[in-house]
Amino acid sequence: MSSRWDTSRTEAFSDGVFAIAVTLLVLDLAIPQAEVQKHLAHGILHEWPGYLGYVTSFVVIGGLWLVHHGIFGRLRFVNSRVMRINLLLLLLVSFLPFPTRLMAQAIRDANAERTAVIFYGLTLVAVSLTITALWTSALRDRSLLKPGLSEQEVSAVTRATAPNLGLQLGATAVAIPFPRVAAFMYLVIAVIAVFRARPDEEEAVAGHPRDPG
Amino acid sequence: MSSRWDTSRTEAFSDGVFAIAVTLLVLDLAIPQAEVQKHLAHGILHEWPGYLGYVTSFVVIGGLWLVHHGIFGRLRFVNSRVMRINLLLLLLVSFLPFPTRLMAQAIRDANAERTAVIFYGLTLVAVSLTITALWTSALRDRSLLKPGLSEQEVSAVTRATAPNLGLQLGATAVAIPFPRVAAFMYLVIAVIAVFRARPDEEEAVAGHPRDPG
Amino acid sequence: MSSRWDTSRTEAFSDGVFAIAVTLLVLDLAIPQAEVQKHLAHGILHEWPGYLGYVTSFVVIGGLWLVHHGIFGRLRFVNSRVMRINLLLLLLVSFLPFPTRLMAQAIRDANAERTAVIFYGLTLVAVSLTITALWTSALRDRSLLKPGLSEQEVSAVTRATAPNLGLQLGATAVAIPFPRVAAFMYLVIAVIAVFRARPDEEEAVAGHPRDPG
Amino acid sequence: MSSRWDTSRTEAFSDGVFAIAVTLLVLDLAIPQAEVQKHLAHGILHEWPGYLGYVTSFVVIGGLWLVHHGIFGRLRFVNSRVMRINLLLLLLVSFLPFPTRLMAQAIRDANAERTAVIFYGLTLVAVSLTITALWTSALRDRSLLKPGLSEQEVSAVTRATAPNLGLQLGATAVAIPFPRVAAFMYLVIAVIAVFRARPDEEEAVAGHPRDPG
Repeated sequence: MSSRWDTSRTEAFSDGVFAIAVTLLVLDLAIPQAEVQKHLAHGILHEWPGYLGYVTSFVVIGGLWLVHHGIFGRLRFVNSRVMRINLLLLLLVSFLPFPTRLMAQAIRDANAERTAVIFYGLTLVAVSLTITALWTSALRDRSLLKPGLSEQEVSAVTRATAPNLGLQLGATAVAIPFPRVAAFMYLVIAVIAVFRARPDEEEAVAGHPRDPG
Repeated sequence: MSSRWDTSRTEAFSDGVFAIAVTLLVLDLAIPQAEVQKHLAHGILHEWPGYLGYVTSFVVIGGLWLVHHGIFGRLRFVNSRVMRINLLLLLLVSFLPFPTRLMAQAIRDANAERTAVIFYGLTLVAVSLTITALWTSALRDRSLLKPGLSEQEVSAVTRATAPNLGLQLGATAVAIPFPRVAAFMYLVIAVIAVFRARPDEEEAVAGHPRDPG
Repeated sequence: MSSRWDTSRTEAFSDGVFAIAVTLLVLDLAIPQAEVQKHLAHGILHEWPGYLGYVTSFVVIGGLWLVHHGIFGRLRFVNSRVMRINLLLLLLVSFLPFPTRLMAQAIRDANAERTAVIFYGLTLVAVSLTITALWTSALRDRSLLKPGLSEQEVSAVTRATAPNLGLQLGATAVAIPFPRVAAFMYLVIAVIAVFRARPDEEEAVAGHPRDPG
Repeated sequence: MSSRWDTSRTEAFSDGVFAIAVTLLVLDLAIPQAEVQKHLAHGILHEWPGYLGYVTSFVVIGGLWLVHHGIFGRLRFVNSRVMRINLLLLLLVSFLPFPTRLMAQAIRDANAERTAVIFYGLTLVAVSLTITALWTSALRDRSLLKPGLSEQEVSAVTRATAPNLGLQLGATAVAIPFPRVAAFMYLVIAVIAVFRARPDEEEAVAGHPRDPG
């Protein structure tokens, strides 16, 4: 009997949604049967917008999962508010395959391309706002945090949750004149996020492996 | 060797089904290639019945997961009867994407709309009846409950399992004259359920964080 | 460092496959847009072979999961042979949506119906043979079993793993003259299996709840 | 608070991706409605390239999961570098259904067949390189390993991670003159990998079952 929600089933459910969302992305990679039989090598290369969308969304969700892991690794409990923000985050993560598919469908059409790339960028911005809100909300009730968490570690997680927001807004603005450039910028930003999502204190304690727990 | 089923794999399997059911909903969001190339911005807006169905079913399943979490958090074991009712619940949760898709397909056609919205509402009613039956059935064998569970806590879970039934029946009745109104009512009811699914005793013990376990 | 595989990740991976296989079944329920707009109520009823396949395969997989749960609940370790048989079982479980879809597609065509129902039945037989082989193989190395497991409990699991084989072979034979009858028999057999999959010793120790573990 | 990532959520997320990737493969098995009604038995047999792709990719991913299980069973922590290589591995595993589908689509067309089988082989090579890199990278920081791991055990895992690379390159080369032969070779190689993925020390300690942990 806990008076708050424990984190383990929330992590399990979230991991399920993250894992399925990344894996469903492959369903949108397809080459029409006619092109398979005529020019398959050309068809495989011609599918590049599909691969770009696939890799970008995979890396976006992978990076989010790392940050989510980092947040929940600091929490002992979640309260109802954090739980609801987490559900909203999962709703947006599950939604991401839809703008991904649109971007891949539209990327060769001048008008559609702009709309699709902006729509994708706005979805990324919504995701980044939500994960920032998740951590901010958890910090409002310090009894949710694991005991003994230092202020430095709290700040490190705070820095890790929101690095993308400004970059994503910038890339979405770039999409107005140069949609295709913005599409590649989203990938670069997502890769940067994965590289920034590092465990805190790594440097400080590198020589002092601790017992788990 | 336990003489009853332990709850952990049941939770893991259920979490898997809940997570996949919400994530598969995105597969029904699609814009035809022709419309992508002509009027994508219009096409994105025109897809609103798809988004309504997506968000409603996501929130319905998210709220169910919270209630399921609340029920299993009070159980030490499940017996065969509870296990079977849980399988029926999962069968209905997995089924929900089908009426969701129908509702999104039908919402612009006066006759089809009514049928689809009623069908969706009846599915919600069946889901609510089943989760109520799950908890009622668990209560019939008190040795399944975690030791030390207070009557107040039992009542709180009971209240959380069945708030939607009356509202959902009402909305389904509204669907006969006003299907589109009912479709939005389902969303509002689902959001209310998520907000009502709060951990018991939260107020009472807010100042007394306990050790986990 | 264990000299055999521990069971927990094997359970997690298997639960994932079981959960996804049941949830994917809903993707095969669909009503053509033309019929949605003309006669949706009729279309919903007309889809009954889809529902029959959905429910049958859901119950088959749910019952298998219960038996799998029962087997792994008695194991402390798995060896490579058991692991390989488990992979074969998962391969067949993942495959089941394919004959399910064929049966639903074919059920209104006299010739196709017979072939599809027999194909479905043979898949069920293969699944039942594999889960029986899984338990038989685990029994060949008694050091895999949890210590203190009684012979009665071993026999009870043995009885639970193979009740369906004879019934399924019978129903598949019935499919030759009466395919539609056999399709309903599969459902009845699957429901019986779920009702038979009960925790061992339940009667004996009903009044003595034990500590978990 | 750990200064490195713990392995449990990484295993859970990876298991989710592996489980979903194998289960999605069935979505590519389909028989057109016209053929269902005319010659279903013939249609079922004619779908053999689909089954070949299904079984090959299932066994490839199952074997990878065994190796992944073996690697993570030796790790106490993962650092950021290992985490990123693991994400890359999952990206490639999730991608595998796409070349699988192409190979099944193309296998009856002389030109397309060659391209598709080579593309599939190159994907397998990329997967094998990545899992080798995962283990090599983990070995570069010995504090990630579980304490007391013997050099023999490290070597055994090393042997298990990379047996396929040479074979897969060979089969991909065979695909240039004989694509259909190579397609079957991929299956044989995957089956061999599953049979080679055995727990280390099995022989040595077969008579000494240890306590878990």
